[in-house]
Amino acid sequence: MFPICFILFFLFSSTSNAAVQDFCVGDPAAPESPAGYSCKPVTKVTIDDFVFSGLGIPGNTTNIINAAVTPAFAAQFPGVNGLGISAARLDLAPGGVIPMHTHRGASELLIVTRGRITTGFISSANVVYYKTLKKGDSIVLPQGLLHFQVNAAKIHSVAFVSFSSPDPGLQILDFALFANNLPSPLVEKTTFLDDAQVKKLKGVLGGTG
Amino acid sequence: MFPICFILFFLFSSTSNAAVQDFCVGDPAAPESPAGYSCKPVTKVTIDDFVFSGLGIPGNTTNIINAAVTPAFAAQFPGVNGLGISAARLDLAPGGVIPMHTHRGASELLIVTRGRITTGFISSANVVYYKTLKKGDSIVLPQGLLHFQVNAAKIHSVAFVSFSSPDPGLQILDFALFANNLPSPLVEKTTFLDDAQVKKLKGVLGGTG
Amino acid sequence: MFPICFILFFLFSSTSNAAVQDFCVGDPAAPESPAGYSCKPVTKVTIDDFVFSGLGIPGNTTNIINAAVTPAFAAQFPGVNGLGISAARLDLAPGGVIPMHTHRGASELLIVTRGRITTGFISSANVVYYKTLKKGDSIVLPQGLLHFQVNAAKIHSVAFVSFSSPDPGLQILDFALFANNLPSPLVEKTTFLDDAQVKKLKGVLGGTG
Amino acid sequence: MFPICFILFFLFSSTSNAAVQDFCVGDPAAPESPAGYSCKPVTKVTIDDFVFSGLGIPGNTTNIINAAVTPAFAAQFPGVNGLGISAARLDLAPGGVIPMHTHRGASELLIVTRGRITTGFISSANVVYYKTLKKGDSIVLPQGLLHFQVNAAKIHSVAFVSFSSPDPGLQILDFALFANNLPSPLVEKTTFLDDAQVKKLKGVLGGTG
Amino acid sequence: MFPICFILFFLFSSTSNAAVQDFCVGDPAAPESPAGYSCKPVTKVTIDDFVFSGLGIPGNTTNIINAAVTPAFAAQFPGVNGLGISAARLDLAPGGVIPMHTHRGASELLIVTRGRITTGFISSANVVYYKTLKKGDSIVLPQGLLHFQVNAAKIHSVAFVSFSSPDPGLQILDFALFANNLPSPLVEKTTFLDDAQVKKLKGVLGGTG
Amino acid sequence: MFPICFILFFLFSSTSNAAVQDFCVGDPAAPESPAGYSCKPVTKVTIDDFVFSGLGIPGNTTNIINAAVTPAFAAQFPGVNGLGISAARLDLAPGGVIPMHTHRGASELLIVTRGRITTGFISSANVVYYKTLKKGDSIVLPQGLLHFQVNAAKIHSVAFVSFSSPDPGLQILDFALFANNLPSPLVEKTTFLDDAQVKKLKGVLGGTG
Repeated sequence: MFPICFILFFLFSSTSNAAVQDFCVGDPAAPESPAGYSCKPVTKVTIDDFVFSGLGIPGNTTNIINAAVTPAFAAQFPGVNGLGISAARLDLAPGGVIPMHTHRGASELLIVTRGRITTGFISSANVVYYKTLKKGDSIVLPQGLLHFQVNAAKIHSVAFVSFSSPDPGLQILDFALFANNLPSPLVEKTTFLDDAQVKKLKGVLGGTG
Repeated sequence: MFPICFILFFLFSSTSNAAVQDFCVGDPAAPESPAGYSCKPVTKVTIDDFVFSGLGIPGNTTNIINAAVTPAFAAQFPGVNGLGISAARLDLAPGGVIPMHTHRGASELLIVTRGRITTGFISSANVVYYKTLKKGDSIVLPQGLLHFQVNAAKIHSVAFVSFSSPDPGLQILDFALFANNLPSPLVEKTTFLDDAQVKKLKGVLGGTG
Repeated sequence: MFPICFILFFLFSSTSNAAVQDFCVGDPAAPESPAGYSCKPVTKVTIDDFVFSGLGIPGNTTNIINAAVTPAFAAQFPGVNGLGISAARLDLAPGGVIPMHTHRGASELLIVTRGRITTGFISSANVVYYKTLKKGDSIVLPQGLLHFQVNAAKIHSVAFVSFSSPDPGLQILDFALFANNLPSPLVEKTTFLDDAQVKKLKGVLGGTG
Repeated sequence: MFPICFILFFLFSSTSNAAVQDFCVGDPAAPESPAGYSCKPVTKVTIDDFVFSGLGIPGNTTNIINAAVTPAFAAQFPGVNGLGISAARLDLAPGGVIPMHTHRGASELLIVTRGRITTGFISSANVVYYKTLKKGDSIVLPQGLLHFQVNAAKIHSVAFVSFSSPDPGLQILDFALFANNLPSPLVEKTTFLDDAQVKKLKGVLGGTG
Repeated sequence: MFPICFILFFLFSSTSNAAVQDFCVGDPAAPESPAGYSCKPVTKVTIDDFVFSGLGIPGNTTNIINAAVTPAFAAQFPGVNGLGISAARLDLAPGGVIPMHTHRGASELLIVTRGRITTGFISSANVVYYKTLKKGDSIVLPQGLLHFQVNAAKIHSVAFVSFSSPDPGLQILDFALFANNLPSPLVEKTTFLDDAQVKKLKGVLGGTG
Repeated sequence: MFPICFILFFLFSSTSNAAVQDFCVGDPAAPESPAGYSCKPVTKVTIDDFVFSGLGIPGNTTNIINAAVTPAFAAQFPGVNGLGISAARLDLAPGGVIPMHTHRGASELLIVTRGRITTGFISSANVVYYKTLKKGDSIVLPQGLLHFQVNAAKIHSVAFVSFSSPDPGLQILDFALFANNLPSPLVEKTTFLDDAQVKKLKGVLGGTG
C-alpha cells in the first residue's frame, strides 16, 4: 500500500502549502497590518499557540474597583489573531464594578458562571437596556456602546466574555477622561462636569493638566 | 433648565433615528437576507431580546453520545443577529463525546468550566493539534476545520463556546454521511469506507439509501 | 444602424438586470437587515435620491452647547445606504462645543471650512491626541473612540465630516449618562462621579432615576 | 436502533434550524438589501437552485462585436446569492471583441477553453498589462479596472470567467458614453472626444442628446 | 491616592498593549499587505500623523483641464491607513473639468464648498444620473462607476470629497486609453473610436503605440 | 503638445503612487498577514504575475482515486492574492473521484468542460443536494460544507472550479482522519467507525497511532 499512499501525498502536496492560512498565529515581532499581526511560520506553530490558561486564574480584585479584567486578546493569546474572536474573564469581588466602558472593535457576549451581575448598555438613542443576571444567564452587548458590570451578589462573581474580534479594544470612561494629560478645562468643556469633580477624579486616577 | 433640555433633544433628534442599527434583533417572521434576519422594530425591542438563559441549563446527555450541544445562535437568541457573535454550551457526561464536526461560518473559542475535555482540530495540511484541557483552560478552533470534544474526566464536564458569527452552522460528520438519503454506494465511493461500515452506521443514525 | 443597436441591447439585456446593486437607495418602509435598509426599486430611483442639500444649511446653535450637528446618514440621506459612507455638518458658534462622544460604527474624517476648531481623540491606551485646526486642515478620528470638537475661534466655525459607514451611530457621553432613566446610584457606581454632580447634570439634561 | 436515532435528532434539532444560512438562494420577489436578494425559504430550495445550464450554450455572436457575454450572476443564477461568487461565458467569433469595460464589484478570473484570446487591464497608474492567452491559460483581472478581450484566433474562441461577487456589475465603456441620453457636450467635455466621433458612436449605439 | 492609581494601571496594563489597533498609521517603508500598509509603531505615532493640511491649499489649475485633484489617500495621509476612509479636494477653474473616471475601491461623497458643479454617474444599466449642485449641496457616487465633475460657475469652484476606503484608486478614462503604450489598433478595436481620434488624443496625452 | 502632457502627469502624479493596491501580487518571502501575503513591489510586477498556465495541463490521475486536483490558489498563483478569487482544475479518469472534502474559506463554482460529473453537497441540516452534470453545466457549492465529485462518464471528465477566496483551503475527509497521527481510539470515539475500518484506511493512507 506504500506506493499508493505516496502518490496521494504527492498529488495534493502543493495544495497543502496553501494551508498556512487555516490560521495565522500572531508574531508580535514581525510587522503589524490593519488586519492584525503577521503570522508565525506554520512549521513553528504548536497546539500551545491555540491554548490559553489565563482565564482560569482569578484576577486580583484588591483594587479601587474590587474587580479585574483578564483579557485573552490577540496581544495575550496569539492563536486568535486573524480568527475574528477573543475572550476575557471578569472577576467582581463583593461591591465590585467594571466601570462604564466601550469596545471600539467588537460586540461582546457575556455569561455569568458564578454569583449575580447587573449589566447593560446604553443605545445611541440614549435608551438604557440592563438586567441583573444570575449564574448561567448570558447577554449580548452591541459594538461600540457604553456598558458596565456591577456585582449584584454578596459573593465573588465571575463572568466569561467573548468578543467578535481578536482585538476588541477597551476604553474605560474614567481612565480616558481622568488618567492622562487632557487639560482639565478641555475635559470640563466637553463633559459639562464641574472643575472640582474633574480634579478630584484626576487625583484618584493619576491624571495631570 | 427645562427649555434647554428640550432644545438639546430637538437638536439631535434626527440622529437618534439613525440609531436603529446599534443592533438588529432578529425577526424570524420577516425576510431573511445573506446578512441575517430582518430587524425587529426598535420600539418593540426590550432587554429580554439581548438576554438568553438557555446556557445555564445542562443539556440532556441521555443519548448515544452521552453529550449535548445547546446552541445560542441567531435562531435561538435573536439579540445576536448582525452582531458577529454567538455561543453554545457543551455538556459531556462521563464517556461523552461531541463527534467530529465543522462550523462553516465561524471560528470557535472554548473554555472549560467543569471537568476535563480533550479537544483539537485537524488542519488542511492534515496536521493534528489537540490537547486535554482542565477547568479554566481555553482553546481556539479555526473556522471550517474538523474538530471534536471528548470528556477526559470521570465526572460530567462542561464547556462554554463562542463563535465569530451569529450563524456559525454545525455539520456533524456522521450525521452528514449516515443520517440522510445519500446513497450508500456514493458514500462508499467518496469516503473509501466499507459497505458494511456504512450500512451499520446508517442503521444507527436513521440513514436510508 | 437601428438593427445593430437593437442586437447589442438584446445581447446584454439580462446583465443589465443585475445592475440593481450598483446602489441600494434605502426604503425605510421595507424590512431592515443587518446590512442596512431594503433597496428602493431601481425604476423609482432618481438623481434626487443621491443628492442631499441639508449640509449647506447652518445648524441652529441657539442651545446649551452653542453648536449643532446636521447628520446625512442613511436615515436622512437614503442614497448612501449600502455604500459605506455618510457625512455631517458641524456648526460651532463662538464658545460652541460638540461634547465628548463616540461613533460605534465608523471612523470620521473632518475638514474645517471656516474658523478654527480644537479636536482630538483618546486612545484605548488613554493617550490623548488633539490639535487646533485652522481652515483647510483635516483630521481622522478612529472608530469607536471618545473624541470632541471645541470652537477655537471668536467667529462661527464650520466643519464637514464624513464617516466610513452609512450608519455611524452617535453616542454623546452626557446624554448617555444623564438624559435617560439609568438610576443615579448605577451611574455613580460605574463612573465614580459624585451624587451631586450626577443629579445636577440629570437636571440639566432631563434624566430621571 | 430507532429510539437512539430519534434521541440524536431531537438533541440537535434546534441547531438545524440555524442551518438556513448555509446558503441564501435569491428570491427576486422579496425585498433586496445591500447584501443581496432575500432568501427563498429553505423548504422550497432544491438542487436545481444551485445548478445553472446557461454557460453550456454558445452566445449569439451575430452582432456588431461578433461576441457575446452570457452572465450567471445572482439575477440569472439565484443559487450564488450571498455566496461571494458568480460566473459568465464569453464567446468570441473570429474578429470578435468584448469591448473595454469594468466590473464595479468584483475581480475576474478568466480561463480560455477554446481558441486564443488577447486580454488585459490598465492600472490606476495607467500601466497596461496584457497578453495573448491560449487554451488552458488563465488570467486574473483586478476589481474595477478597465479591461478587454479580443479574439486572437481565426476560430470561435471561448472563455469561462468567474467573479469574486454574486453581483459583479458590468459597465461597458461605449454603452456608458454613447447609448443613453448623456448630452453630447457633456460627453465631449469629460472625455476630450471630438463632436463628430461622439455623434457617430451615439448613432451606432442608439444614444440621444 | 498614589497607590490606588498604580494598582489600577497595573490591573489593566496588559489590555493597553492590545490598543495598537485603535489605528494603524501607515509605514510605507515596511511590507504592504492586501489590508494596507504596515503600522508605524504606536510609540512613534503623534497627533501629526492624523492631521493633513494639504486639502486647504488650492490645487494648480493651470493645465489642460483647468482643474486639479489633491488626494489625501493613505499614500499621502498615513493616518487613514486601515480606517476605511480618505478624502480629496477638487479645484475647478472657470471652464474646468475632472474628466470621466472611476474609483475601483470606494464610493465617493462630494460636497460643494464654492461655486457650482455639474456632476453625476452612469449606472451599469447605462442610466445617467447627474445634476448641477450649488454650494452646500452634496452627492454620493457609487463605487466603481464612471463619473465626472464640470465647473458650472463662472468662478473657481471647489468641492471636498471623501471615500469609503483609505485607498480608493483613481482611473481617469483618457489617461487609461491614451497616456500609455496600449497599441492604437487595440484601443480602436475595444472602444470603436476612429484611428484619427485615438492618435490625436495619444498626441495630447503622451501615449505611444 | 509636450508641455501640456507633462503638466497633466505632474498634476496627478501623487495619486498614481496610491495605485499600488489595484492589486497585491503575493510575495511568499515577506511576512504574511491574516489578509494574505505581503505585496510584491509594483515596479517588479509584470503581466506574467497575473497569468497562470497550470490549469491547461491535465493532472496525473494514475493514483488511488483516479483523479487529480490542480490548484491555482494564492500559493501557486501569486496574482490572485488579495483579490478574493482563485481557481482549480479537476481531472477525473474513468472511475475517478474527488473524495468528500470541505473548503474552510470559500464557496465553489464548478463548470464541467468534458464528460459528466456527479457532484453535490450536504447541508448543516443534513439534507443532500446532488446531481449529475453534463458538459456546460455549472453548480455552486456553499462554503465549508462537505461535498464531492464522481466521474459519471466512461471517458476522462474535466471541470474548472473557482473559489470566492484566494486561499480557500482544502480538507479531504479521509486524509484528515486517516493520514496523520491522530490516535485510532480518538478517531473511533469521534466518528463511530469500527477499529478495523480505521486501521484499514490508516494503512492505505499512511496514518499512524
